Amino acid sequence: MEKYADVIQIGARNMQNFFPAEARGTSEKKPVLLKRGMSATLDEFLMAAEYILSEGNYNVMLCERGVRTFSDFSRNTLDLAVVPAVKKRSHLPILVDPSHGTGKRHKVLPLSRAAVAVGADGLLVEVHHQAGRKALSDGIQSILPEEFAELMTEVRQIAEVVHRVVN
Amino acid sequence: MEKYADVIQIGARNMQNFFPAEARGTSEKKPVLLKRGMSATLDEFLMAAEYILSEGNYNVMLCERGVRTFSDFSRNTLDLAVVPAVKKRSHLPILVDPSHGTGKRHKVLPLSRAAVAVGADGLLVEVHHQAGRKALSDGIQSILPEEFAELMTEVRQIAEVVHRVVN
Amino acid sequence: MEKYADVIQIGARNMQNFFPAEARGTSEKKPVLLKRGMSATLDEFLMAAEYILSEGNYNVMLCERGVRTFSDFSRNTLDLAVVPAVKKRSHLPILVDPSHGTGKRHKVLPLSRAAVAVGADGLLVEVHHQAGRKALSDGIQSILPEEFAELMTEVRQIAEVVHRVVN
Amino acid sequence: MEKYADVIQIGARNMQNFFPAEARGTSEKKPVLLKRGMSATLDEFLMAAEYILSEGNYNVMLCERGVRTFSDFSRNTLDLAVVPAVKKRSHLPILVDPSHGTGKRHKVLPLSRAAVAVGADGLLVEVHHQAGRKALSDGIQSILPEEFAELMTEVRQIAEVVHRVVN
Repeated sequence: MEKYADVIQIGARNMQNFFPAEARGTSEKKPVLLKRGMSATLDEFLMAAEYILSEGNYNVMLCERGVRTFSDFSRNTLDLAVVPAVKKRSHLPILVDPSHGTGKRHKVLPLSRAAVAVGADGLLVEVHHQAGRKALSDGIQSILPEEFAELMTEVRQIAEVVHRVVN
Repeated sequence: MEKYADVIQIGARNMQNFFPAEARGTSEKKPVLLKRGMSATLDEFLMAAEYILSEGNYNVMLCERGVRTFSDFSRNTLDLAVVPAVKKRSHLPILVDPSHGTGKRHKVLPLSRAAVAVGADGLLVEVHHQAGRKALSDGIQSILPEEFAELMTEVRQIAEVVHRVVN
Repeated sequence: MEKYADVIQIGARNMQNFFPAEARGTSEKKPVLLKRGMSATLDEFLMAAEYILSEGNYNVMLCERGVRTFSDFSRNTLDLAVVPAVKKRSHLPILVDPSHGTGKRHKVLPLSRAAVAVGADGLLVEVHHQAGRKALSDGIQSILPEEFAELMTEVRQIAEVVHRVVN
Repeated sequence: MEKYADVIQIGARNMQNFFPAEARGTSEKKPVLLKRGMSATLDEFLMAAEYILSEGNYNVMLCERGVRTFSDFSRNTLDLAVVPAVKKRSHLPILVDPSHGTGKRHKVLPLSRAAVAVGADGLLVEVHHQAGRKALSDGIQSILPEEFAELMTEVRQIAEVVHRVVN
């Protein structure tokens, strides 16, 4: 897999899977996107990143994708306060995934804006030309290409307010 | 109390306290700020507002102030996804309180920006000229007047992006 | 109300409603059953009891009725570890309500047994001769009189193991 | 590892680690003890077991070890209602781990009794002759051999009430 992928993603369910780098696909020092576990504390999140760093791969990006709570109007509760919390304790970039973090298409745009406003270093957004129930996987939380264009316009403007540049 | 107050706040701990309007101080139809309970679902939150509306007081504002989760780096977990969720089901304004919602001074600014970016209709921010441990109450989560000025500048700019005006 | 009731119950939603004793119906020193709030910590639970004690009413019973979590197979998550935790810090009796605590009829018997085994000082069990959907309120979590008889038999035996007597 | 171990334990952090049986050490059809993830729903728990069954290893035991909540007086919140919930939907045995489930030594005995009373098929209890801070790992939640003897006496008696036999 490492041959073909540009980035190795370690999913929320495997955040604390401390198998060797070879088994996890992180041995070739490709950039690793480490998603926060569904009920991971900040310490656990940073320690899981530390584990990859300790294997000699320093290209680690963190990603908040929502935690599990009693809230029933979104699939997960996107914990944006983790962004300033990470920035206080680590030099690693922290991204936000509002698609998995909310699980609802109409929440992706507002939460993307919020993620950039809170200081996130990047976004993971699912886009599909048949967003909605037709897409084979995760269609309910995907947005349409035209919604993505709108998102990019808004996000660029907010990034400017927080002195960031969107490439 | 109703004589002197401009707004009656119903705290998170009393969101579902269904005492008569007289006992709750909401009988004179002063604006009511209803804070979301610490583990309230969206239905419970909206029903609690409905209870006040049903007594003939239509000046109700909702306020997200963080929910209780396992997260240990902030006092509560600010659930910003409730903002678009409320807007989908209700005409009532929804505010965000990042001071109680995070309980940590250095998180108030980034979460205030995020709240405006997600579409909140207002902010509740605690400001104290001796923010930090000297203030008698809630000092740890208060910001200094100069931080508030910075917050207002950023918030005005983000409000513009989401086509809102800050008065 | 105080005239006719034998016990004044303060529900989970009003645990932290610090209105005067008169407004809460606790002024005549009738026994008060204080239910734990849906996301109350142990400190908050004990402090809420302290508030009633400080008004001069010492007949306070605590009651665990389940806390709010992500768990979706019961209405609440009955937190039985609170029983030994209360016993370590307070002299007040602690009861358990497996009917509200699970919200599911088939869980009432096993969790009643567990509550007695963990050391609870009493149970609150809803019984209805038309348990199931026919009862006007809380029917789904009520048990039938014959199930209650079975419960009492089992509970008496377990009480004996933990050196308690069921009256 | 499989050569020497009697039972392969899959920890809470790896419940949803869907690596092949060889990588997980479950290929030789040794009994597998599958611990519930810290925020796993019942569906996720049973599906994780199904994954092992589908590889041809039918010797699977489930184990509740506490879920993550806001509760601050125990390390986790032991969710005993999962025992009748599992029994309603699966034929697999379900065990309870009160040592990890509470993380506090003085709670191990009462919660062990509760686990048997609720109908658990087994217990996982940590015992150490230097329980407390001297043991190298998990000492705070271990019990002394004499406490274990007391636990066994109580548990045998409660097992009898629920028509079970302790071997």
